[in-house]
Amino acid sequence: METAICTLITQFKTYAGKDGSASTLSKEEFQNLVTSQLPNYVKNASDPEAIEQLMGSLDENNDGELTFSEFWQLIGKLASKQGGFSQ
Amino acid sequence: METAICTLITQFKTYAGKDGSASTLSKEEFQNLVTSQLPNYVKNASDPEAIEQLMGSLDENNDGELTFSEFWQLIGKLASKQGGFSQ
Repeated sequence: METAICTLITQFKTYAGKDGSASTLSKEEFQNLVTSQLPNYVKNASDPEAIEQLMGSLDENNDGELTFSEFWQLIGKLASKQGGFSQ
Repeated sequence: METAICTLITQFKTYAGKDGSASTLSKEEFQNLVTSQLPNYVKNASDPEAIEQLMGSLDENNDGELTFSEFWQLIGKLASKQGGFSQ
């Protein structure tokens, strides 16, 4: 389980580090991450409007960047759905 | 990343399924999971009082059982700490 958590941290950092702030995801970084890393969990990742909406729903402080904690909430929701847990 | 998320779901279910409700962790199941699966992230897992406190801080509805969503908040906090992100 620690290995799996470590993978999620490492992947987040890889994508977050591509431009601007190395510890947050810009919209472009977020779309790249979702498209490459979550192709089965997020189906409409190639639709810019869908990404915009998804990102808006997660970006609690509306600064256009996703922190690790904001991103964690997304994968928690995806995992709950995937695992068949009620939200 | 999907594989890592899947591992977390599967491990949660393995421990949650040992007694009582198959979709939530009892205190005993939680302690077993933390001790076996998060030995480096949670240091004082063998201390019943520490487990009691940790579980109490996560169990939002205070029913003595942790849902997947409550558990997800814990690993999110551990991951933030591990990854060096501010909380």
